[in-house]
Amino acid sequence: MTTSNCSCCSHATTPQKQENVKGKADNNQLVISSDPEHPANLICELCRMFYNNGWVTGTGGGISIRDGNHIFVAPSGVQKERMVPENMFVMDLEKQEYLRRPEIYKPSACTPLFLSAYTMRNAGACIHTHSQNAVMVSLLFDKVFEISSIEQIKALPKIVEPGNLWYSDKLVIPIIENTEKEEDLTDSLQEAIREYPGATAVLVRRHGIYVWGETVWKAKIYNEAIDYLLEIALKMKQFNIPTVKPK
Amino acid sequence: MTTSNCSCCSHATTPQKQENVKGKADNNQLVISSDPEHPANLICELCRMFYNNGWVTGTGGGISIRDGNHIFVAPSGVQKERMVPENMFVMDLEKQEYLRRPEIYKPSACTPLFLSAYTMRNAGACIHTHSQNAVMVSLLFDKVFEISSIEQIKALPKIVEPGNLWYSDKLVIPIIENTEKEEDLTDSLQEAIREYPGATAVLVRRHGIYVWGETVWKAKIYNEAIDYLLEIALKMKQFNIPTVKPK
Amino acid sequence: MTTSNCSCCSHATTPQKQENVKGKADNNQLVISSDPEHPANLICELCRMFYNNGWVTGTGGGISIRDGNHIFVAPSGVQKERMVPENMFVMDLEKQEYLRRPEIYKPSACTPLFLSAYTMRNAGACIHTHSQNAVMVSLLFDKVFEISSIEQIKALPKIVEPGNLWYSDKLVIPIIENTEKEEDLTDSLQEAIREYPGATAVLVRRHGIYVWGETVWKAKIYNEAIDYLLEIALKMKQFNIPTVKPK
Amino acid sequence: MTTSNCSCCSHATTPQKQENVKGKADNNQLVISSDPEHPANLICELCRMFYNNGWVTGTGGGISIRDGNHIFVAPSGVQKERMVPENMFVMDLEKQEYLRRPEIYKPSACTPLFLSAYTMRNAGACIHTHSQNAVMVSLLFDKVFEISSIEQIKALPKIVEPGNLWYSDKLVIPIIENTEKEEDLTDSLQEAIREYPGATAVLVRRHGIYVWGETVWKAKIYNEAIDYLLEIALKMKQFNIPTVKPK
Repeated sequence: MTTSNCSCCSHATTPQKQENVKGKADNNQLVISSDPEHPANLICELCRMFYNNGWVTGTGGGISIRDGNHIFVAPSGVQKERMVPENMFVMDLEKQEYLRRPEIYKPSACTPLFLSAYTMRNAGACIHTHSQNAVMVSLLFDKVFEISSIEQIKALPKIVEPGNLWYSDKLVIPIIENTEKEEDLTDSLQEAIREYPGATAVLVRRHGIYVWGETVWKAKIYNEAIDYLLEIALKMKQFNIPTVKPK
Repeated sequence: MTTSNCSCCSHATTPQKQENVKGKADNNQLVISSDPEHPANLICELCRMFYNNGWVTGTGGGISIRDGNHIFVAPSGVQKERMVPENMFVMDLEKQEYLRRPEIYKPSACTPLFLSAYTMRNAGACIHTHSQNAVMVSLLFDKVFEISSIEQIKALPKIVEPGNLWYSDKLVIPIIENTEKEEDLTDSLQEAIREYPGATAVLVRRHGIYVWGETVWKAKIYNEAIDYLLEIALKMKQFNIPTVKPK
Repeated sequence: MTTSNCSCCSHATTPQKQENVKGKADNNQLVISSDPEHPANLICELCRMFYNNGWVTGTGGGISIRDGNHIFVAPSGVQKERMVPENMFVMDLEKQEYLRRPEIYKPSACTPLFLSAYTMRNAGACIHTHSQNAVMVSLLFDKVFEISSIEQIKALPKIVEPGNLWYSDKLVIPIIENTEKEEDLTDSLQEAIREYPGATAVLVRRHGIYVWGETVWKAKIYNEAIDYLLEIALKMKQFNIPTVKPK
Repeated sequence: MTTSNCSCCSHATTPQKQENVKGKADNNQLVISSDPEHPANLICELCRMFYNNGWVTGTGGGISIRDGNHIFVAPSGVQKERMVPENMFVMDLEKQEYLRRPEIYKPSACTPLFLSAYTMRNAGACIHTHSQNAVMVSLLFDKVFEISSIEQIKALPKIVEPGNLWYSDKLVIPIIENTEKEEDLTDSLQEAIREYPGATAVLVRRHGIYVWGETVWKAKIYNEAIDYLLEIALKMKQFNIPTVKPK
């Protein structure tokens, strides 16, 4: 086993600093925009929000947004709440080649996982957090997390058919085993995506969660709704209330 | 059962975006105002606060304000913390017809519930949250939530007579059963309002809470005070302390 | 028993509104200042902070600052996080007469309690919160709250002699019984102040806490340190760890 | 035992006030800079963040940054979230003499502990918090805190060799006993640093934690990652899940 770090979740050698984040001067036009809805700007804004929720502290977690054939990904091992658009990697989805690759950073080890959501599910964005609720649920459930009959479930999509889940539907999120290196999760993540065609998220045991959606806003909404359900499930466990309501 | 979504708590097909939220150009004068106390502005401000409290994450929950005969309601399935005044629906209370109906959104499925508070209690505003404290209390109590002898109770009104509850008074909030569609809660909500003339709120099992008040500020104060009491009740349960103090 | 409200903790009939908070035009010079350290400005700033900590939600709690012979007190029953300097009452400490009394508000029912800290302890400020940690501790301890051998204790004063408590000293905070009306707490609060000359705070069972200090900043620091200790005491209780370390 | 306070964690006699914080006029050039990355500015910014996390409330905790041979240290007993650059002490690391010493403050009693991290580990910054997670873990573990097989571990360095810990590696943080005076911790802290060459932090029982890193950003990242792991360990304890995963 080489000692190359799983770069998604560890810090890079050179933490970001205003004067160091310029990256390659060329292709800056891919990430510099005055539009707050530009993917490079949104990634920075959302990561600040996720940091305040405790989802991406200590450089953990990450986010990627797809804009047509362009994939925007935050770099590896940086403080997610202090990123600026110049930090972003941009990849051509079809060719899977970098269009912009800031030299001082390492690409995120989450990249092959994000790509799985794009290619297998045509996602518009993918969020990865180290949410403590996700980690705790992964310690208390076996192969899948299941919950039913909580109103917030209705914020989540059926996927296998149009529309959202109903209140009494059972939400099922598969749990895959963690690996030493983040990129080694790719096979089992893809297997879970195939095995659970209705899932818009995959939990990683003792690690966190991957959530994706048709757009960045849907991914954000799904992530919030799922984290709410993970949290309430933990509270139900504390009071010995089953998370799946008996019929 | 058709698969039309319960729209209050699920996201709409097109999430809000700065360039898409203009809605019908006509009747914009109903929602555009430089007065921060205008109902359309207050709904946006309060929803940002409620989001930060975890009460309306993942598009959950909502709020409505009445200004004379005009009812302002946030649309269905949007991110509550990112709304702008142009998103608002406006309804004539007496005729129950929309005066302003942004075409790209669905009206909130909470609307008939909000209207119940306006018509049956002459409320000035109604707040609906997916507060986890509300959901957990609904799982631990049967027909009603009861608490007494906690100072914060004094922030809540007696309603059946002028003035607020006393410290040692028992606060009683009815709990109604959830339904697949939010609008189907209307009958049982109205029944609870009739049966509990002193209640300024109704809990919905496994769903959340509806709170109303004479004005938007009173509704906000009541909602805060009730959530405080729900939270302390859960802590008392953890330490096996009865929420109603034995005489 | 009359139905006059305990006004400290219940909302007034007319909640504050920008255009309504002017109060008496005369004596505005007592509360209008561009100095952020002016008592009327500090009360507003600190209450916004306390609100975000959950200490004064739902109009609960309050704060008073003494500046020489002038006592500044927030009004009764208003949203503590939305106050403006024009809301403040100002009292002459010696004569115990109002120098400024906004007509649309009721004076805080906490006023006699604040005055007790000023006259009996020469305090410079007094803070009253409905902290849930205070309420829970008051439900789990009998006559006094006691804790020892936690570093944060060193932020608190000995009072009976100069300097602060040591790490292994025992912090003792008396707990008095709540009453229906806040002003009726005055006698037992004064008795506790006399009986516990080393206390800089008094817990009120099922209600909250009063904390005072030589200056507003010391009162704030003491309140933060005590709340930290109340919170850790509750966590210790959950793990069955005694809050007073056996010698 | 004299009654001189452990000044790191208790408040000074004169709390900071805008007009009082000027300190010695000479050597202001050491702390006044328009660069937000200047150590004096960073200490103020980070302390505001730490305060919002509950890590340095009630004047508790502190932070020090090294810039070459200059050590910047926040003063003793001040509100950490309200500091301004003029409050800072500056010390020459080699000579261990103050280059700037604001007269109205006491130097931090943490200073010899910060110096230990600089001289023994060549740290670039050292953070001290009163994190409740740290205090609780110190009450539930004996000589060391241990955790393994949680993804967030990968944010922490091996130190004894290049690179970060792996997912399944065991993170070990020594716990030393608290003393009445903070400076008396120096010997046992240094012993722990020698005995645990792979540790980038030391827990102090019933007190808090010291965390250091090669740069201020690494120290911040390590502190966040460790606090995340302390918090999840407490949750695992509540569900009787061992923090070290059995092989």
